[in-house]
Amino acid sequence: MESKRVDAEISFSEEKMKKNSLFDSPHLFYDAYCLLPGQSQKLHAHEGSDKVYFVLRGTGRFTVGHDEEDLGEGYAVIARAGVPHGVRNETEQNLVLLVTMAPRPS
Amino acid sequence: MESKRVDAEISFSEEKMKKNSLFDSPHLFYDAYCLLPGQSQKLHAHEGSDKVYFVLRGTGRFTVGHDEEDLGEGYAVIARAGVPHGVRNETEQNLVLLVTMAPRPS
Repeated sequence: MESKRVDAEISFSEEKMKKNSLFDSPHLFYDAYCLLPGQSQKLHAHEGSDKVYFVLRGTGRFTVGHDEEDLGEGYAVIARAGVPHGVRNETEQNLVLLVTMAPRPS
Repeated sequence: MESKRVDAEISFSEEKMKKNSLFDSPHLFYDAYCLLPGQSQKLHAHEGSDKVYFVLRGTGRFTVGHDEEDLGEGYAVIARAGVPHGVRNETEQNLVLLVTMAPRPS
């Protein structure tokens, strides 16, 4: 069975936000994004893919389209195809996000 | 911003496993499945779609293909397209799963 204990798969990088792949298929990416205090994923968009973030640990400052919002543990947010989105860790704590993107960009 | 506090969206049904939709798009389903003790999602398969389960609360007994495994909080598992899969709550505690399916079955 392809199961993963997410906590065992996560790691951070001093250099930049770290994407830890959990599952990868022709249909989707399923990753754990790890952001140290001050790190960010710059605003960007995927023309044909939706992305859903779920906050596992910490609080992220999310931008989706023209909206900006701080979301803590247990919150989920969707960035639909074509809509610019990004996230910053403006806190003093580590931030861990469970991230799904579908379809997998080719 | 289309954000959801997952805990505020979940509900159980005495009748059967309850699927609570969080996000729905042409590309994916993103749901919270809630299973009371003894409830289950029967073994089934989706020909063209992958499903990922993430255990938010409790422990599920997952079947994927020929494998059966108990997975607790913080575990994720993928059932790839065409592979039979299901989950049962064999415990005395409630079970809550974050479930992604992509592409969205038509």
